[in-house]
Amino acid sequence: MPIGVVRSSLGRREDAPRREADGPPAVLEVDERFAPALEGVHAGMDLIAVTWLHRAVRDVLQVREPPTGVFATRSPDRPNPIGIHRVTVTAVDGARVHVAALEAIDGTPLLDLKPA
Amino acid sequence: MPIGVVRSSLGRREDAPRREADGPPAVLEVDERFAPALEGVHAGMDLIAVTWLHRAVRDVLQVREPPTGVFATRSPDRPNPIGIHRVTVTAVDGARVHVAALEAIDGTPLLDLKPA
Repeated sequence: MPIGVVRSSLGRREDAPRREADGPPAVLEVDERFAPALEGVHAGMDLIAVTWLHRAVRDVLQVREPPTGVFATRSPDRPNPIGIHRVTVTAVDGARVHVAALEAIDGTPLLDLKPA
Repeated sequence: MPIGVVRSSLGRREDAPRREADGPPAVLEVDERFAPALEGVHAGMDLIAVTWLHRAVRDVLQVREPPTGVFATRSPDRPNPIGIHRVTVTAVDGARVHVAALEAIDGTPLLDLKPA
């Protein structure tokens, strides 16, 4: 069950940059019922955002040539497509956490947040 | 659906140290069907092991005094108790990945592995 959703100008998986820092600003829209869990999250803080990469292909076990196991790569395609993103908070507005740069596309489910 | 399970001498949540480096050596026992996804994982490599902290309490939103939101802490208790562990591979034996130090307890479900 997600705790929220990513809001971003990135609409398609093909548009997502390879490096987090190249992503556009985004908003982590946390469900209102989890708002108390954001107490203490503030601008300037670095967070780990854990996402579910819902557009990933889950039956891919190897990529590239020579074949490399997905557990040895950062490929989004993997059995459990969990995304781990280090983000810098620029503002917190209720249960909306604004971050400086994120490579996840709009609508990506958010699973967890932790301090980096 | 887990990709495997943690095997560790840590039997109880109370025994888990607070810092990853203080954990005992452990084995990430990956399901045989996902073994091809380990191709390229080797001794000396640093991985991010993503776990499901199955003993966590999921309805805790704030901890400590003054109350701090769990998303601003490393508390295992949180709505989606996902653990993120940086581990160093010491050996790979079939689908068993031996790591130097891990704070997760025996039986913790393993969700994903990525290069650190």
